Amino acid sequence: MKKNKFNIAVVGLGNIGINLYKHLIQNKQNIEKRTNIVLNIKYVSARNKFKKRKVNIPKNKWLKNYLEASKRKDIDIVIELIGGSDGPAKKLIFNSIKNKKHVVTANKALISKHGNELSKLAEKNKVNLEFEAAVAGGVPIIRTIKEGLTTNTINKIYGILNGTSNYILSKMSETKLNFKEVLENAKKLGYAESNPKSDLNGDDAKSKIQILSSLAFNSFINKSKITVEGIQGIDQVDITNAKLLGYKIKHLAIAEIKKNKLVQRVHPCMINENSYISNINGVLNAVIIEGKPIGKFTIQGEGAGPGPTTSALVSDICSILRGNIKFPFSVSDKNRKKIRSLDISEDFFSSYIRLDVTDKTGVLSSITKILSKNKISVKRLVQNPFKSKKFASIIIISHKAKNSNLVKSISELANKKFVINKPKFFRIEEI
Amino acid sequence: MKKNKFNIAVVGLGNIGINLYKHLIQNKQNIEKRTNIVLNIKYVSARNKFKKRKVNIPKNKWLKNYLEASKRKDIDIVIELIGGSDGPAKKLIFNSIKNKKHVVTANKALISKHGNELSKLAEKNKVNLEFEAAVAGGVPIIRTIKEGLTTNTINKIYGILNGTSNYILSKMSETKLNFKEVLENAKKLGYAESNPKSDLNGDDAKSKIQILSSLAFNSFINKSKITVEGIQGIDQVDITNAKLLGYKIKHLAIAEIKKNKLVQRVHPCMINENSYISNINGVLNAVIIEGKPIGKFTIQGEGAGPGPTTSALVSDICSILRGNIKFPFSVSDKNRKKIRSLDISEDFFSSYIRLDVTDKTGVLSSITKILSKNKISVKRLVQNPFKSKKFASIIIISHKAKNSNLVKSISELANKKFVINKPKFFRIEEI
Repeated sequence: MKKNKFNIAVVGLGNIGINLYKHLIQNKQNIEKRTNIVLNIKYVSARNKFKKRKVNIPKNKWLKNYLEASKRKDIDIVIELIGGSDGPAKKLIFNSIKNKKHVVTANKALISKHGNELSKLAEKNKVNLEFEAAVAGGVPIIRTIKEGLTTNTINKIYGILNGTSNYILSKMSETKLNFKEVLENAKKLGYAESNPKSDLNGDDAKSKIQILSSLAFNSFINKSKITVEGIQGIDQVDITNAKLLGYKIKHLAIAEIKKNKLVQRVHPCMINENSYISNINGVLNAVIIEGKPIGKFTIQGEGAGPGPTTSALVSDICSILRGNIKFPFSVSDKNRKKIRSLDISEDFFSSYIRLDVTDKTGVLSSITKILSKNKISVKRLVQNPFKSKKFASIIIISHKAKNSNLVKSISELANKKFVINKPKFFRIEEI
Repeated sequence: MKKNKFNIAVVGLGNIGINLYKHLIQNKQNIEKRTNIVLNIKYVSARNKFKKRKVNIPKNKWLKNYLEASKRKDIDIVIELIGGSDGPAKKLIFNSIKNKKHVVTANKALISKHGNELSKLAEKNKVNLEFEAAVAGGVPIIRTIKEGLTTNTINKIYGILNGTSNYILSKMSETKLNFKEVLENAKKLGYAESNPKSDLNGDDAKSKIQILSSLAFNSFINKSKITVEGIQGIDQVDITNAKLLGYKIKHLAIAEIKKNKLVQRVHPCMINENSYISNINGVLNAVIIEGKPIGKFTIQGEGAGPGPTTSALVSDICSILRGNIKFPFSVSDKNRKKIRSLDISEDFFSSYIRLDVTDKTGVLSSITKILSKNKISVKRLVQNPFKSKKFASIIIISHKAKNSNLVKSISELANKKFVINKPKFFRIEEI
């Protein structure tokens, strides 16, 4: 018999947990109208029970220990909002599923690390494992791939997946401030966490693209040979140069099938300033899918924050109430493919290279010699575009060249005495 | 017991029907993997059985009469691809639902006209009525509202919903050709139907926004007080003027809640050339939703054509196979709201007005007098921006003024002897 009442436990009561709690209380009837099921927040748990929160939670809802959520018979769905790829979050989710409880999580690090194992376990125990909120909260991309685009053959999925990085790059472009100044402002405004490392170094976007590519290509989450570069090395001068050359710098996550192999990469890209994605600014996220029969499809919204994340969590919860899809990654474990991964060393990219050099004769010929040796041909070269007293700045736009050769040249150039700052190198992406 | 095999009948075998047929044959296993159900195309029907088609359909699949699809016991799902808001399509869908068959349709005219009644009937008979393909094929917007954004409170939904109109406006902007020339090209290229009336006069977009607003606001489809204007009156000179003034002309469909009432309107708009939506070109469709808690959300893709429409139809079919949501409009008939509608006569708009006038003294003062009488104040006025031998062209950008006053002024101006062509009037939309 179909249940007509579901009890949930919300574990983790930070900004998102509290926002979700309030939304579920306010929308109880609304949810019942849509699912014919009464949703009851039976329990909550948080590291600090006595922290001041913007909502009154009745005493009888508090669990003594968070792990009770995975054990108590009167809990049907566990909402994990603890965070972290291991530790308590992992323990809670594994135990909950083993005890046949549905799980909803916003934890991208955990899903990208343990998703394959968890998915198999959820299938075995016939419960849902839902993680819409793990990737781009205000963009219901996971449900869209699983349901809206079902049976499409997807060839490429890419986009802007980290709101903090995108906010910083947008602000640098708007304000002419440098990276550090913008980052400090972002922290003050709540757009960057106090420790924003995984947002800035690309790790966060990496977890997300791994999850998306697994869904898009019906494959297991693939962790190998992923190029990951963050935005920490981007200077204001590069943003300005990009503009002068008709580009914008965006931090993209890209997954595609090439020669039947999976290429996953996360790095800053120079893209045409008139392209759709170069106009996605601030904390917005956007995902683009190229597939058949649907063609090119785009979805865009706020990437994070309590509101959008709550929206995603509720869509997951309602999906469970309605008894929707059980397979966490669209298809059964036995039907998920093992796709071999390909690193980008053999891939070809146009690129932007900036070299700050001592202003002496022979430098230019030395640079071009290194490039030529590595089979990199120059499409455009601008010397000294900005006045500087101490050095000259050389900007090179290369024709398409092998990634390994580009990397090798940069490293060779970095070792030259006349190169006085770390060379800058960004791939140009034609999208 | 849950069925493990579903038989479907595809009624209507035009480009879309054939594309769907092929896709379902090719993806039979793929669908089974996702739903655990075997999907079998048991029957087909078309007006002309002997028309040459790009696929071989076994003789035993042909129904003698299309209405058999609604009667035969060995059919679970009827796919209606006949078209038209009444006649055979209506007969087929009503009968199918009465006989407890699930229905999938791409028919926006029919759903916008009979959706309220059909939805109630489907609920009573406990079958699905799915129509993702009726609105923006390559944009899974209906499933997104029903599932991805469930329990969001949506305040406004709008976008570009007619690919043909958008294609024509984009091409006029690109090529400087006039409306008729671009339309003829569009017909040749298959982007406009041989009779494109409902695409050009706004009726098609009207049906779509009615369906979307009903889903977004949990209300019955509301047919009254909708302003509908098409793109037939847009001249190349208006497109050019728009550009000079920093705008683009786009044909938008807009639904929003104002003072607890529903405002629905479909008309050409002047919008900022840097806005997101002004860069949606060609046959693309885009839908923007403003809601809580999600914020501003955007989804974009190809609006029509066999590929995107097939993608939408298959997502509907799979949704039925999985036993997903039964309520065609998210909530039960008894929970759908009756929202009173509000026409736009009392709404305020900035506007663009173009008057072609005889080049005589006193004309300008006569124009400004009429505007002033109707409480329309001029923000910008450009006289004679283009050289013409016979007349002067006056372009007025007005401050916000009441729609009824704008319409009245235009009509008064049209009657003046010195106005030699029909005045052009477009609302400026701040989005």
